[in-house]
Amino acid sequence: MPVQTAVIGLGSMGFGMAKSLLRAGHVTYGYDLNPQQVAAFRKDGGAEGTLEQVAGDLDALVVVVLNAAQTQDVLFGEDGIATALKSGAVVIACATVAPDFAREMETKCASLGLHYLDAPISGGAKKAAEGALSVMAAGTPAAFKAADPILEATAASIFKLGDAAGPGSAMKAVNQLLAGVHIAAMAEAITFGMTQGVAPQTFVDVISKCAGTSWMLENRAPHIVNGDYTPHSSVNIWPKDLGIVLDVAKSAGFGAPLTAAAMQQFLAAAGSGLGKEDDAAVAKVYARNAGLTLPGDV
Amino acid sequence: MPVQTAVIGLGSMGFGMAKSLLRAGHVTYGYDLNPQQVAAFRKDGGAEGTLEQVAGDLDALVVVVLNAAQTQDVLFGEDGIATALKSGAVVIACATVAPDFAREMETKCASLGLHYLDAPISGGAKKAAEGALSVMAAGTPAAFKAADPILEATAASIFKLGDAAGPGSAMKAVNQLLAGVHIAAMAEAITFGMTQGVAPQTFVDVISKCAGTSWMLENRAPHIVNGDYTPHSSVNIWPKDLGIVLDVAKSAGFGAPLTAAAMQQFLAAAGSGLGKEDDAAVAKVYARNAGLTLPGDV
Repeated sequence: MPVQTAVIGLGSMGFGMAKSLLRAGHVTYGYDLNPQQVAAFRKDGGAEGTLEQVAGDLDALVVVVLNAAQTQDVLFGEDGIATALKSGAVVIACATVAPDFAREMETKCASLGLHYLDAPISGGAKKAAEGALSVMAAGTPAAFKAADPILEATAASIFKLGDAAGPGSAMKAVNQLLAGVHIAAMAEAITFGMTQGVAPQTFVDVISKCAGTSWMLENRAPHIVNGDYTPHSSVNIWPKDLGIVLDVAKSAGFGAPLTAAAMQQFLAAAGSGLGKEDDAAVAKVYARNAGLTLPGDV
Repeated sequence: MPVQTAVIGLGSMGFGMAKSLLRAGHVTYGYDLNPQQVAAFRKDGGAEGTLEQVAGDLDALVVVVLNAAQTQDVLFGEDGIATALKSGAVVIACATVAPDFAREMETKCASLGLHYLDAPISGGAKKAAEGALSVMAAGTPAAFKAADPILEATAASIFKLGDAAGPGSAMKAVNQLLAGVHIAAMAEAITFGMTQGVAPQTFVDVISKCAGTSWMLENRAPHIVNGDYTPHSSVNIWPKDLGIVLDVAKSAGFGAPLTAAAMQQFLAAAGSGLGKEDDAAVAKVYARNAGLTLPGDV
């Protein structure tokens, strides 16, 4: 049954999710700080109207922003929309945040009669556009039920991780720890190989068939081979996401030395002006430090 | 055409390779410092005779020992066998060693009229037993030709990486860098998840389908879930192999911070008495430091 929904945040992930919701026949509004993104989505079939006008009619609000601060701001900031939603609506929160933050948001939403689904996403812009994301979800049975049409339209895999908010964000933090470490490890290995005469293309050809491979290696190493740093996912994601992991780890008294080492490499990448490039550009930090010339370098 | 070959080192990898050579119809001798391994191989069909007796008849010598020192010792040590081999025989060197060492061995073998194949292997004991290893090989065309019956019987994938020794060992070092980092990263992530209420089994179920996965994660994380540290590949491998990587990196002026961080975790595992357990036991270092109880702990 078609529902009325709004997607807040029309970045590479949110735009794809909003389009998937349209394809599934839902009345879908899209909002973003960038008016060009909003116009582009309306041109593609997005419904017209300001968030203030339509908030009371929404069955589901999908929040696909960058971090906890933006999620907090969308829901409970100065122009926060939570109080304008109707009782029984569901907030589907997709940003990578600390589990404690997800629990806090669930409590605040519950006090307004709103359901809250702790629902970080994984899969990248292409899967978002295809409606084939992985969702690491936790929330009450009622929250899952209210979110069902949205999940159905946007996700290929829905991991139901708990009956209250928190475990979705916990699992996302675990995934980001690994994803960030694996990107940095790929960059370390491909440049180490170059010091020993292993060409980047040979690295990809061989290692992708050996025990040293990873999902991230197979996805990102070709960017280095091609010298193409078009940001499918940018360097700047990692100081943010590994920062969340390290904050959560510290709170738990957990030492995470590989995560910390990867963090330093991404900080060096961001600090040297590579923040908006594809995250495979962390290889440029290794190359610079070793006097290597990567493919595509001039 | 059946050849005469000897496998030096009947550990988990060498024993499987020797059995694969027997299955392929080659006259195969097997030697090991442990006489029980030699007896077991002869019971399975291994040919009889001391290495001194048969050395002059061998077409190929497969050296599957632990490291460069043992390889050196087998070939050129006090009882070194290289001088007893017939001209035109091939030495197939499978240990993980520095590329410079492989080049040195090739030169020394060439001076005796021997071919040398720089041929580190990957795939684990199971693939060795199946004759389905990956071989990262480099050597002269004549060395490859002489080694062909051996590679045919033992390997599913043969990567031909260069026409002189060195690139095989270089690629193996690259692979070991990644494999070691990925095992430590898996251990870091699965225990970090536990601090956030993510059960190890749930970790495997979800992450193996997400962008955070790796070959090593899918292979090793189940050992932690099952509390089974039977050493398919032991902790002690990693101070050795990551030590080679870090030595080679240092010689090249290459900083490898993730490798160095992983090295510390494996050293802590080995130093605290876990050296002979499966390498997934590096998770015990994380668990101990965070006050966590892993599955199977009593």
